Amino acid sequence: MKELLIKNATIITMNDDNDVIENGFIFIKDKKIFDLGKTDDCKYNSSNQIDASDKIIIPGLINAHTHASMSLLRGYADDYPLKIWLENYIWPAEAKYMNKQNIILGAQLAILEMLQSGTTFFNDMYFYEDEIAKVVKKAGIKAYLCEGIIDYPIKSYDVQTKFDKIINLEKEYPTDDLVYVGIAPHSPYTCTKSTLLKAKQIADDFDMIYHIHVAETENEYKQIPDNNLSPVQFLNNLNLIDDKFTAIHCVYLNDKDRDILKEKNAGIVHNPVSNKKLASGIADVYKMMKKGLKVGLGTDGATSNNNLDMFKEMSHVALTQKAISKNPETLSAEQTLYLATKGSAKVLHVDDITGSRSG
Amino acid sequence: MKELLIKNATIITMNDDNDVIENGFIFIKDKKIFDLGKTDDCKYNSSNQIDASDKIIIPGLINAHTHASMSLLRGYADDYPLKIWLENYIWPAEAKYMNKQNIILGAQLAILEMLQSGTTFFNDMYFYEDEIAKVVKKAGIKAYLCEGIIDYPIKSYDVQTKFDKIINLEKEYPTDDLVYVGIAPHSPYTCTKSTLLKAKQIADDFDMIYHIHVAETENEYKQIPDNNLSPVQFLNNLNLIDDKFTAIHCVYLNDKDRDILKEKNAGIVHNPVSNKKLASGIADVYKMMKKGLKVGLGTDGATSNNNLDMFKEMSHVALTQKAISKNPETLSAEQTLYLATKGSAKVLHVDDITGSRSG
Repeated sequence: MKELLIKNATIITMNDDNDVIENGFIFIKDKKIFDLGKTDDCKYNSSNQIDASDKIIIPGLINAHTHASMSLLRGYADDYPLKIWLENYIWPAEAKYMNKQNIILGAQLAILEMLQSGTTFFNDMYFYEDEIAKVVKKAGIKAYLCEGIIDYPIKSYDVQTKFDKIINLEKEYPTDDLVYVGIAPHSPYTCTKSTLLKAKQIADDFDMIYHIHVAETENEYKQIPDNNLSPVQFLNNLNLIDDKFTAIHCVYLNDKDRDILKEKNAGIVHNPVSNKKLASGIADVYKMMKKGLKVGLGTDGATSNNNLDMFKEMSHVALTQKAISKNPETLSAEQTLYLATKGSAKVLHVDDITGSRSG
Repeated sequence: MKELLIKNATIITMNDDNDVIENGFIFIKDKKIFDLGKTDDCKYNSSNQIDASDKIIIPGLINAHTHASMSLLRGYADDYPLKIWLENYIWPAEAKYMNKQNIILGAQLAILEMLQSGTTFFNDMYFYEDEIAKVVKKAGIKAYLCEGIIDYPIKSYDVQTKFDKIINLEKEYPTDDLVYVGIAPHSPYTCTKSTLLKAKQIADDFDMIYHIHVAETENEYKQIPDNNLSPVQFLNNLNLIDDKFTAIHCVYLNDKDRDILKEKNAGIVHNPVSNKKLASGIADVYKMMKKGLKVGLGTDGATSNNNLDMFKEMSHVALTQKAISKNPETLSAEQTLYLATKGSAKVLHVDDITGSRSG
């Protein structure tokens, strides 16, 4: 498709003024938005046209944290406590079923579901990301692909081999238009300090995002090596936190943690449905936003959700934050859509591809 | 339609054992479930058949609290504080637009949306319920129709005329298969003691449900006439609470309130999305269920939601209660579906019509 002209749409631009163009057109050329404005002022013509009367156009949604291939385990082990969920169900199932072939199939299924529900970019943390890269290229979706690294309690590979693989993947896709390569040490309680630090060196060397679960549960405070510190403070003491640091969850932050994340301009990805399903808790997203922290939105994997629908995440985050802040003005429709588009884009440092632009 | 035979379905019976029939049939005769079981054992035949392979059959959902006609005001005044929402938007809009003709149109729209999303029974609180009764009869949905009564701050009618109207409506539909008539004094902070007591007399005389908003916001404790008491205790001192008492919201209950509602076998209707959207708070539904209180589920009106989809309510209640109880076993899929079917039916005393039966 060289060109596409869409007419008569209501266009939510998500530009800095939140402009909405009623009865608008978008002219797409060489896969990029070439121009947009009022349909009455449209000077373009194309044999490839869509009449979008009664339709709304929004920027593509960005799912800022998922484990795409886990869509194969959707609905497996619902309503169990985290320990039983992981130890009796998820880890054995992953060991048994999540081989290369099924990871590819799972990614295919996940990408279909994401495209169908308006997601055009996802940030992945899983294994065989080199294989998932091929699926991404074929599907035409965009993705940050971050190979996961775990030291304990389960370790089935040599960490240095993993690092080499990540570097090779980065070298394969240095400036790709669809595939971005990141690094994903699983969490402060499942990786050694040495692994966390080596991963940071690679992230710095290749300008990658550092994609890590942080402060997901209250219990995590007891699980990190230095339990006088919060997970954020522990990671900060290792000099891991900067503007490419992508902290997933952050359900349990104190004021000092928020100060650190603000000072370092780090990104936070909120996963409202996953945090609820696993009974981790409810993150104070309204506090983060009030403080001007960089926040995006994600679904997490389908096993802890059970879907990859960003509209459901938007519904949950907007409504629940209103309730816990006791303020109905918290998270307006504009702010909520921001989280799922430009907010996620800023966390992942891909602002240039959000599809939003000034009208 | 005299008969209908549905074959090859997965049937969620919601009987007392939560039986699920794989590859099941349901034979419907004279608008009632005549028999059901395994398709292989089906001895019925009909020219009116549905092959429900890959489909699930559940009992009709019961929306235990709504203001159906307000669907015309959907999306009007989102993200405002309650006082501004009511005083600057909702009340003026109702005064200007919600005349008899528009109340009928709003009810038609709401009923279409409810039927489309699986709701077959709703409990309404609004005005012109005599007109809504005609819409219900025409649509073929079932409904408890409870004429609303408000003394202040806005009162535009004579209360005794209202009571007479309710009695006449009950006399018009004494044993109807679709229309049930109830009475709905708005709340303890908008009705006088005299009105609350007279409404109870009518409810007793005609065996109606007593449909009332209770403890929706924290502020309500200051709004009731005797502010040394909780709303539940205030209403209980007036001898209003019994097994036909249908307390809507109950976001703010203390232990004594729960004891009273349990002892009197009163019903509670939880409206998770509405309570979040208006930032009222999050009710401790898991505590209510643990104590064995009668709980059902509702959408509230579309202005405070913005839809009438019981599946969304189920998603919100299950996930949010897991999060606030910090227990992923809270509100399993079965318990959640129970709330939207048999739970609501028990609150409304219409257990006989839920469509669930032993397999």
